[in-house]
Amino acid sequence: MSADRLGGLLKNMGIWKKHVDVYEDIKKIDDYIRKSLKANQRVLNDAVNELLNAGGKRLRPAMVLLSGRFGKYNEEKLLPLAAAVEIMHMATLVHDDIIDQAEMRRGRPTARSRWGNETAVFTGDFLFTKSFELVTHSISQRNMHYLSNAIKAICEGEVDQFESRFGNEFSILRYLKRIGRKTAMLFALSCQVGAAESQCKSSTIRLLRKFGYDFGMAFQITDDLLDFCGNVAEVGKPLCSDFLEGVYTLPVIYTMLNSQFKDRMAQYIGKDNLTESDIEEVGRLVKESGGLEKSNKMALRYLERCHESLDKLPDIPAKGAMKELVEELIERRY
Amino acid sequence: MSADRLGGLLKNMGIWKKHVDVYEDIKKIDDYIRKSLKANQRVLNDAVNELLNAGGKRLRPAMVLLSGRFGKYNEEKLLPLAAAVEIMHMATLVHDDIIDQAEMRRGRPTARSRWGNETAVFTGDFLFTKSFELVTHSISQRNMHYLSNAIKAICEGEVDQFESRFGNEFSILRYLKRIGRKTAMLFALSCQVGAAESQCKSSTIRLLRKFGYDFGMAFQITDDLLDFCGNVAEVGKPLCSDFLEGVYTLPVIYTMLNSQFKDRMAQYIGKDNLTESDIEEVGRLVKESGGLEKSNKMALRYLERCHESLDKLPDIPAKGAMKELVEELIERRY
Repeated sequence: MSADRLGGLLKNMGIWKKHVDVYEDIKKIDDYIRKSLKANQRVLNDAVNELLNAGGKRLRPAMVLLSGRFGKYNEEKLLPLAAAVEIMHMATLVHDDIIDQAEMRRGRPTARSRWGNETAVFTGDFLFTKSFELVTHSISQRNMHYLSNAIKAICEGEVDQFESRFGNEFSILRYLKRIGRKTAMLFALSCQVGAAESQCKSSTIRLLRKFGYDFGMAFQITDDLLDFCGNVAEVGKPLCSDFLEGVYTLPVIYTMLNSQFKDRMAQYIGKDNLTESDIEEVGRLVKESGGLEKSNKMALRYLERCHESLDKLPDIPAKGAMKELVEELIERRY
Repeated sequence: MSADRLGGLLKNMGIWKKHVDVYEDIKKIDDYIRKSLKANQRVLNDAVNELLNAGGKRLRPAMVLLSGRFGKYNEEKLLPLAAAVEIMHMATLVHDDIIDQAEMRRGRPTARSRWGNETAVFTGDFLFTKSFELVTHSISQRNMHYLSNAIKAICEGEVDQFESRFGNEFSILRYLKRIGRKTAMLFALSCQVGAAESQCKSSTIRLLRKFGYDFGMAFQITDDLLDFCGNVAEVGKPLCSDFLEGVYTLPVIYTMLNSQFKDRMAQYIGKDNLTESDIEEVGRLVKESGGLEKSNKMALRYLERCHESLDKLPDIPAKGAMKELVEELIERRY
């Protein structure tokens, strides 16, 4: 889903008068990112532009700006920080695609399929560097430390995921821990750092951090669900691509933990040469076993927690916008 | 050449009483790096340890500490900075090996050949993140900005090199510009930042920066020379590996600019399927055409400039050690 689409969606819901203009925020973030990412090398510029034009929801930077509104909101200070978080995320996406050998991302060819792994590696490094540079200009060392930790956690989560590929261990706990590192921590940090840099009191920072973490968990579980039941145009990449790569996500784990379906599913585990009809059967199994439904419930549980955190926060327009983002994520799923 | 060997070499030359104990510096840097790079993920830890054990000359961090001695030397402040510069360099090496699809580096299997591109990508990212974190703890925003620019330049230089592979353009200027970005800038920055963080006066910072740049240029040209005439054990990777990858360095450029040898050399340009006897012929051509000798002279010119800069700097023990490093680089070549 592109920033435009998300913005458009919220716009249609008529929340702009009630709440913060997230659409306007996202436009500002995009402009800032574009301005920041000028490279002295044509291919690098092309790769970066392609990435920017491919869209993306800009949810993480939106979280930075929204969280900042719970304190002394200073756009000049928060905008580079928000941009940095998104650029960091873009860097991990580019490198992620090398690992997944992904051909498509957000409905377009990935950097690696277009320019090769080589350019993708350094495009990612360029983005990392740029994002760190932006961050150091705008935040305290303490928050920089937290942010670095988030990126390290992403790296650890990614390597862990890669190492577990085609593996025969099906643990919900390990899955949750992994997506916590891989995805939720950066959402948590986006909220935390936005709030902390706006001098929010520590209880507010804690609640926003928790909100971000739970939102990130729900977001990743939803992403993993959509890999089985989304439509290709919306997801922007082929269905079951995780499964084909040997990455067994929550719906598969639930299916493997269901004694009635375990044996049928096990035939497709650990294999890297599945046919289309195999994949269709995998899709049926995660559905019939209740794997999709249970995963959906897990995501909803995290989204409920999001509401619980929000309920404890002061009633400001940014809170309304955050609630809408939660609702939007709920709707995204079915 | 490993840190031990370099240290040992300098030690044998009996320069310890005259000069700064670079060997002791390097040991401290190594300890600091080891302490900093603990990851919460086994494979990541293994990859990092393997990299550390593989050696490396630690020249860049040594430059930070040596340059710092021209001002108010504060080891506690400079050590994390020196470590960060080396970790940054390690990150680019790991990513570099993905691009080169290198199997060997410093005489050992590369991270990518051992754990696959996937782990190598995130090992590099982990290293980048760690190095930025160290840097932000210890230096001013201004110097952080310079350092980020150096990394961006490395990325630009690497992508440029990759894009030019197997290409038919032979320009000394473009080569020098590329290695300036790819290699010399980080040496320059190591000296500059070490001096600036030690409150050296601006003329001293400028001279040290220039020294670092010229040293880096000589260093890279030497590396490119050794790709043709070094011995495999010392270089730690097969000979002519750049040429086989379509990366045409200074000796090749000189050969192609020599009208008497151009046509014979041209047969091997742009081809990615060269035989061993082709490679032997390429080796003969760069030698007979004077390509090696001219490249050697170019390196010497940069090393002379190093001495010129050093001559203008105050006579402190660190300067003596820097002179030894220049001499060591001269000896390394033949």
